[in-house]
Formats: sequence, C-alpha cells, structure tokens
Amino acid sequence: MPAVVLKQRAAFDTKAASCQSGRNDGRNVSSRSPARLVQRALPLSVPGRFMTRRRVHSWRSAMVVLALAAVPAAPCVAQKAPQHVASSVSAADAKDAASLRAVAQRYRASHEAAILHDFSGLLAIPNVAADRANIRRNANLIATMLEQRGVSARLLELGDASPAVYGEIAVPGAKHTVILYAHYDGQPVVAAQWATPPWTPTLRSKSLADGGTVIPFPTDRGAHVSGDARIYARSAGDDKASIVAMLAALDALRSAGRAASINIKFLFEGEEEAASPHLLQILEKYRALLSGDVLLLCDGPEHQSGKQQLLFGVRGVTGLELTVFGPTRALHSGHYGNWAPNAGAMMANLIASMRDDDGHIRIAGFYADVLPVTSAERKAIASVPPIDSALRRSLGLARTEANNAPLAERLMTPALNVRGISFGAVGEHAANVISTEAHASFDFRLVPAETPDHVRELVNAHIRSQGYFVTSDSVTIQMRLAHAKIARVEWATGGYPANRTPMDSPVARALIDVMRDSTGHPPIVLPTMGASAPSYMFTQALKVPVIIVPIANYDDNQHAANENLRLQNLWDGIDMYTELMGRLGKVAW
Amino acid sequence: MPAVVLKQRAAFDTKAASCQSGRNDGRNVSSRSPARLVQRALPLSVPGRFMTRRRVHSWRSAMVVLALAAVPAAPCVAQKAPQHVASSVSAADAKDAASLRAVAQRYRASHEAAILHDFSGLLAIPNVAADRANIRRNANLIATMLEQRGVSARLLELGDASPAVYGEIAVPGAKHTVILYAHYDGQPVVAAQWATPPWTPTLRSKSLADGGTVIPFPTDRGAHVSGDARIYARSAGDDKASIVAMLAALDALRSAGRAASINIKFLFEGEEEAASPHLLQILEKYRALLSGDVLLLCDGPEHQSGKQQLLFGVRGVTGLELTVFGPTRALHSGHYGNWAPNAGAMMANLIASMRDDDGHIRIAGFYADVLPVTSAERKAIASVPPIDSALRRSLGLARTEANNAPLAERLMTPALNVRGISFGAVGEHAANVISTEAHASFDFRLVPAETPDHVRELVNAHIRSQGYFVTSDSVTIQMRLAHAKIARVEWATGGYPANRTPMDSPVARALIDVMRDSTGHPPIVLPTMGASAPSYMFTQALKVPVIIVPIANYDDNQHAANENLRLQNLWDGIDMYTELMGRLGKVAW
Repeated sequence: MPAVVLKQRAAFDTKAASCQSGRNDGRNVSSRSPARLVQRALPLSVPGRFMTRRRVHSWRSAMVVLALAAVPAAPCVAQKAPQHVASSVSAADAKDAASLRAVAQRYRASHEAAILHDFSGLLAIPNVAADRANIRRNANLIATMLEQRGVSARLLELGDASPAVYGEIAVPGAKHTVILYAHYDGQPVVAAQWATPPWTPTLRSKSLADGGTVIPFPTDRGAHVSGDARIYARSAGDDKASIVAMLAALDALRSAGRAASINIKFLFEGEEEAASPHLLQILEKYRALLSGDVLLLCDGPEHQSGKQQLLFGVRGVTGLELTVFGPTRALHSGHYGNWAPNAGAMMANLIASMRDDDGHIRIAGFYADVLPVTSAERKAIASVPPIDSALRRSLGLARTEANNAPLAERLMTPALNVRGISFGAVGEHAANVISTEAHASFDFRLVPAETPDHVRELVNAHIRSQGYFVTSDSVTIQMRLAHAKIARVEWATGGYPANRTPMDSPVARALIDVMRDSTGHPPIVLPTMGASAPSYMFTQALKVPVIIVPIANYDDNQHAANENLRLQNLWDGIDMYTELMGRLGKVAW
Repeated sequence: MPAVVLKQRAAFDTKAASCQSGRNDGRNVSSRSPARLVQRALPLSVPGRFMTRRRVHSWRSAMVVLALAAVPAAPCVAQKAPQHVASSVSAADAKDAASLRAVAQRYRASHEAAILHDFSGLLAIPNVAADRANIRRNANLIATMLEQRGVSARLLELGDASPAVYGEIAVPGAKHTVILYAHYDGQPVVAAQWATPPWTPTLRSKSLADGGTVIPFPTDRGAHVSGDARIYARSAGDDKASIVAMLAALDALRSAGRAASINIKFLFEGEEEAASPHLLQILEKYRALLSGDVLLLCDGPEHQSGKQQLLFGVRGVTGLELTVFGPTRALHSGHYGNWAPNAGAMMANLIASMRDDDGHIRIAGFYADVLPVTSAERKAIASVPPIDSALRRSLGLARTEANNAPLAERLMTPALNVRGISFGAVGEHAANVISTEAHASFDFRLVPAETPDHVRELVNAHIRSQGYFVTSDSVTIQMRLAHAKIARVEWATGGYPANRTPMDSPVARALIDVMRDSTGHPPIVLPTMGASAPSYMFTQALKVPVIIVPIANYDDNQHAANENLRLQNLWDGIDMYTELMGRLGKVAW
C-alpha cells in the first residue's frame, strides 16, 4: 500500500488524478486489505506439491466453453475524473463487475498458499536469457501450467532461439481477441549482492528495507499471508508475477464457472531482458497464429503512488560495453604514475564528456531526433498524482536530476545510464597499480524518432571526437602502437526503438473502464513508461496497438539484487486480470 | 637481460650514461651469463628441506670475526663517465673487487637450488600487512634465517604492530655501520587475476608475457637454472628478493672465509605496503639500537635499461577511498533513468574534475608546494640512458602522458593515480539498473615540500567545490536528505612525504664506486625514484642519509597480479650485496 511503500500516503491521494475515460462505478473500494501474517514455522513449499493429480485432471476437463453476451456500454469521454464521480455504467454492468471482483477475491483468499506455491515453483528455475537449458525448463513449466488450466499451449520455436510460450483460449461468440504478453526471462544477477539466493524464492514479512524477516511459505489450504509480505527472487516482479497472476485469474474464473469475455492469446517471451533479439522474427513467423485486436504488454511496475496505471508507450533501448586501454601489463603506480596512461582516469574523462551529473547528454546531435512532447501528452503528465517529493524521500535523495524536474516529464526524453564501471580494485583490494584497461557499461533509453542505429553512430562519433580510435574488434599490439587512445565499443545486439500508441482509441477507453471497475479508482494514464519493451515489434509485425498493464510494486528492485514482489500487488493483479478477462469483451470498443 | 626484457637492447647502451663519481675499474664484465635451463621434472621444494641441522650448526659457529683493513681510495669527482674510462682504482683495490666478484659468482653458481629453496620458502607465507598471523610467521622465519647465518637477530615489537626483524653483524675494526633496510610484507592480491596462486611460488622458463612455462624448482645441489627464468609469487620482486639476496651474500662471504668490511644492521619491516603506520615509532623506540652512518633502502626495481641504479630520493604517498551516493536502493534504469542521480556518472565527473588524461592535476593549489627541479637534478635526469621509446613499445603504448615527456622527468612531479573504480556491473553481469553508490580508490605520489595533510585539505576542498558535502563518517539518511551530493572520503592512515638525500656525499661516492666494481658499469644515478618508501622516517628518527639500492627486474609486476623476479636479477643482487658488504668499508668515505 502507498502508506507502507512511501510513508507519505497523503501525497498520493487522487486530488490531481485524471482518467481518459469518464466512467466510474461510484465505489471506492480497495481490494487491498491486510491479511493475517502467517507465523507458523512450516517447511518451504516445493514445486509440484499442490498440483495434485486430481486437480490437473479436473482442470483438463474444464475447458472454457461458456457463451457470453457482449453488453454495450456508454461511450467513454475524456474528462477530469474525481474519485467519487457519479457512475455512468449500467446497473447490469456494475453488478457484473462487482460479481467478478467478488469471484476473484473469494478465489484468491482461499488459494493463497497454492498461488504462492505455483509462483515459487516458477521462480526457482534460473532464467537468465543466456542460460539456454534453464530457459527451456521455464518454458516447459509454463506450457504445462497453461495446459493444466485447459489452455492449448505450445512453444514457438525459431532456430536455436529461446522459445516463446504460446497459449490460446478461444471463446465461442467472443468479438475480440486480446494478446496477453509477458516475459519469463530475467536480468543477470550478481549473486553476492543478494540477501538470499536469486533463485531460492524467499518469503519475508515485509520489505528487506523495512526490516522484513524470512517467514515460511504457507502450506495449508486456506492459510492467509499478509499483503505486505514480499517474495524475493529474480523475476518476482519482472516479469513472472504477471504470468502467475494471469494463470490464477483463469483459476478464479473457473472456480465460479465464468468464461472469459474475449479470446485470449498468451505470449510469454524468453529473451526480453536480452533485448528480444529474436522476437520480431518469431512474431513474423507466427503472424497468423498471433493475430489479435490489441496486445496488452503485462510488464513493469505500478505507479509510485501505488495506483494501477495504463501506459501507452515505452522507451527504446540499446546497450554499450566500452573498454579503454592503458599499458599491456599493470604497472606500479609510483614508478610509472603520471607517465603511463591511466585507463581509469581516461574512462572517467570519457564518461564525463558524454553526460553531466544532471543527466544531460553532451553527445553532439543526441537530441536532434527527439520529437516534441504533444499537448495531450503534456496534459496527461500534468495530471499524474505528485509523487516526486515522496519518492525522493523514500530513496534518500535530496535532489533529482535536472533540478527536480518531475519523473513523468523526464521519461519523455532520452537517457544515458551508466550501468557499471570496472577498473582495478577499490577498498581492501586496492593496490598501488595502474591497471591495464577500464570497462564501462551503458544503456541508452530512446524516445520516438530516435533509432538505435543512429544513436550508435552518434556515440561512436563522439568517442572519436575525444581522440579515440574506435574499434569493435579485439585490440592488437599493432593497434596499440598506432593509436594513443583506443576505445573498444561493443554494442548490444537487439536494441530497439521507442513505441507509442494513441491514448484515446476505443480499446484504450474500454480498458480504462475495466481497470476502474477492478480497483474502484480510475487508473493513471501516461503516454509512456520509462522502461523499454519490444513494443514496436508488435506494432510492426502484428499491426496491433500495444497498451502496457503493469502490476508489480514500484519498489520491486527489478533488474537489481533482492528483486521482490509485494504480495498485495499479486492479489490485486489477479483481481485485475480476472476482471479484464471476464469483462473486457462486454464493454464496447 | 635487457634484450629479453625490452627487445631493444641497442637503445640502452650506455652512450648517455652518467656517473656521479669518476671511478671505474676499467673492466666491462657483466655478471649476467645464461645458465642451463633445468628441465628435469623434480618435485617442488618445500621449506626447510635444504637447511640441514649440520649446516645450521656450522653456521652458528662461523661468526664473522675477521679483521679488515680499510683501503683508502681516490676521491670521487662528479663527471661524465664513459663506460670504458681508464681505471683510477689502485691495483690492490681492483684485485680485491675482482676477488669478491669471483667469490659471489662461485658461491651462487654452486648453490642456486639452495638459494631458490630459501626464496620459495619465504615466498610461500602469505604476507599482506593486515594478515597479522602470517606476517608474524614471516618475521619468525626471517629471524631464524638470520640466526642460521650467525647473525644476532630479534623482533622489534611495538604494541600490537607487526614486528620489524632486526639483525646485527659487528665487525671488529670496522669504521662504518650500514643499515640495510627491506620489507617483508606485500601488497594485497586479487587472487583470481593470478595465473598461479600468489603464495604458491612458481618457477617459469621465462616471463609469462613471453610465453614462459612452469618448470620444476631444482633440487640437486649444483643444478643450474637459466637467468631468464622467473619466480612468480607476491613479493618475489617487492621486496623479499632483497632479503634473500642479502642472506645469500652472507653465505657467499662465509664460503670464502671473507668478513664484512662494515658493521651491518639489518632492518626488515612488515608494514611497508600498508604505508608504514608504525615504522616511525619503531625507529624512535629503537633509536640507539639502529644508529648507523647510512641507510641503504633495498627496494624497488632496476632501471628499465636493465642497469643497476642508485636513487637518492622517493616520492611521498597518501591514499584515498572515495564514495559517492545515489538512491538508497538500486533502481530500474528505464523507469528512473535521467531522473535518479547516477553515482557512476557522478564519480566519472568528479574524477574528470580532478585530473585530465595527461596526468595534469586540476585540483586548485596542487602544484603550489612543489619545489623546482635543481640544475644538478636536471643534469642527472638528462644523462639517463633513453628508455622511453622502447618502454612504450614493450607496454603497447603509442603515447605516454604529457606528450611523451621522459619518465625520469615526470617522476619529479606529483601524481594522482586512479587505482580503481567500482560501480554496478559490466559485461555479462551488467544489468539495467542505477546502482546505489560508486567507489573509487586513488593514490597520490608527492614530491618534496608537499605534505599528505595539505594534499588531503586540497582534495577535500576540491570535492566541496564540485558541490559535494564531504564527510568521512557513515552516511545517514539525514545527511542524504540534506545534501544533493555527498562524498565520503576515507584517507589512508600512514601516508608520508617525499624525501631526498644529496647525490654528492662521501658515502654516495663510495657506494657508486662499489656498485661499479660489482657490475663493471657505472650505476645510473637519479635524484628520486617514482615509488614511495618511508625514507623520511629514517632521516627524521635516525639522522642518516638514505640511498636506494634496488635489484628487482623493472617488469616484475610489483603490486599487481603475477608479480615475479627474474633470476638473473637475484644472482646479480647477490653479487652486488657480496661486493657491498665485503668492500664498502674499504673505500674511503
């Protein structure tokens, strides 16, 4: 909850909240209620423990075949939407929404242990994209989990690329097909930085930062775990939570004998954190299979206010590994200090030439491609609940870049992030030597009209302008003797551009309605998220609009050590997917 | 040998060599002759294996008691000293020098296996100053090795500081007392960077860089090992080689029934690589015991030309660990990139503000204390054999700092060396996060009139001038919320100033004579070495001039991974110490 997350709940009230659609069911019920903290010392659950043979069979026989009626809804009109505005939904609509919410909450409340079991079983399999054997184990388990729920599943193969997992639910009479995308791979880890091992899912009473202690996973059916508890593991927030929440939503619908209101196509990628090097080819190869009306990109965190948000764009990304070179062997810093080139100092000077402390990119031409922010985007950004001050406080920051410019505004511009610098050694390992080479790692976040190729050209040209010979090859002794300064640039394969979808399309309005029905609040709507996803590929290959529907807590340490998911976000995510699957087809678009 | 080391022997011939003293024995005999490479696969020697009980006893009864006659020598006059200048030494002098050289070479040629055994036994004991238990094991072994040679030895204790090892040889009739200083501790290691473990002494046929392969230590008495072979271990070059060479020189003298010509006081420190935090107190506490006429600081490498050098000064040193801070938890670089401060970029900008790629220090006032180079110093520097071009080639450098200014000239100025930078992760471990803090490690090399205290003030003031709140305390959340930019500075304890001794004193001239007698060449004489040693402490506490007498190969990777000693340097060092002990008291000073 926001109060827990930021300790500044007052700042997040919806005084300034906006909704791109005018519908509101008039209720202000949060699904977030604290549940009893399970304190019994039970053994950690193990994969497969809850999925009894009987349950699998009953699921297999429960193919969703119920017909459904599409209920026309009132048209959505963009307007300011105070929180308690009178509802414009029909009585039948409101009843259906409430019914679905009750279905989700009832199912979840009595299956927390089973859901956490499924989640931890999936999290226990290492999932760095480069670890091909384990990536395939993940894919196989997810396919099995889909099939256990009566979803026809298969792996989408492309040569020796990691497979995408595909699942399909065809609903007789459904008018729309929604593709639900998530990814099952995770960022690389530095295991030593983790409080508990990244692929040993660990439950804590609350966040580590707030002093959370390890608690056992529940094993009793019906056991409750506090929504403030968190599960720690790589991909707990990014992005296996989305997959598990969707599967639990299917279970919730089934438990009430309800059908989905839309045809659903699940698409779970295994290389997203490696910049999706094969996704476009997979989409093109399976274009017919993957046809649909909209793709919901189920990834990323909730808004920092703790509210559900819908995002209509992503930033693009490209990555760079940079090496600069000093002497071929490490030298004593006394005998050779201020004679031998110091690659660490050279790297510092080079990075300093690329960006300042305020995030301003000094590379010539870097901002030339950036499109101006539209007035609609500016309006959306301006109406977001103010979170910057509280966020700064929660992160121990007296000031953020560009003189405290708001986060949502900053995300409309490109970023040059230093991910890492490595040279010699520091602290107790520091020795008085001039080391041989310095390494730095960067990611560039791009906005519409910038392309990775052009960014690479600009950066390479900038490094040359600093007196460097730039190569992407191995550095030979001949190169060293020919060039005073050498930079090896290794650009990541698979970088991609930004992508944005209009915020006022019929499907966008329908989705905003359903979201509000799920949470009782209008969602926050923003033109872009700061993070990247291969959104452009869907637009290019499948010709579908892409809308981002995140569920993870904003403080989930995604990509970093001690990644985690706050359980209330999982519970809310299940509610949201249940509502979405059960009702999106009933709202006109 | 130089040709092996730099592959540019021609560049190092002594055309431009100078000698501060005009004596030359007229011979040009190098003691460096290739020895047969031992190729038999013998087991690695173990400590204690060669030191039989009988040998220990015979040594203990062989206290050096021979009287000696001081032979007056011609006065030394500073002049250009071409290599083959006619000798000005007396016939008796020349005969004595030749005799001692023969003694050393004969002893060494028939005891290589035993010398290497002693050396590897000492190198096998870990010796990082912070590792107190092993430091004491080193000290105890060295004291035992001294006593085995009839030297009265003890440990000089000071509270719980690591002990210095003291040994004394009193020679009846000797006019002068020479303190021979070395250190037995070594720099910290990053074991993963070593080809073989740092405390598993390993013999290789030649240098790793030249493709040297592991060869067995010899076990047969009389076995020969090529002078190009190298022993790899922490402190092989810096500075246990000096200790072992001195002990072997004692053995060589004894083998010929020769006495030392001087009273000798051995002083072996155990905290030099930790910046000698207790040495001054130890010297003051044992001032009476440590009285003498000159201190020879036996540390550092030979000149890059492969020639013996005498150095009359050292640079001072102080160390800094610097941390700058970003958010209290790592953030997704997409969601927060160009909003959250990036500590890696901040560190790069801070380092860039401190020095440029050419080693020029940008910190205000940093050069204000630096004394101008004297004309005598300038003359000495100008007469050094030109080595820069060949050194650059051997290190794969097309250019060195300050537009290829000569090394010897650069060492007359202060240096700001970046030892390490650590932020986030690079390469396969790089993740798309904005990490929480960036670390950098520096050493500053100081020249006369600069003090560590003043340097600290200047650097702290500079960091403040870059907008940082500077603290040496733990960084609290209150600090974080009060200051936009925070730098934690942790200055090393025990930094010390530079020190220089006049190059034209009687003892300097005597030493130059003896050195020339040992090698057949005038030594290279320089006002300072680039590295640091606690030389000022000897001057301050013992009121003795300090002259530096290095023996290690210049490419010994000292302070870095794969530190090594080229065996010919050990053999030459034994020759030099034999000559020095046997003859320094016979030359007038």
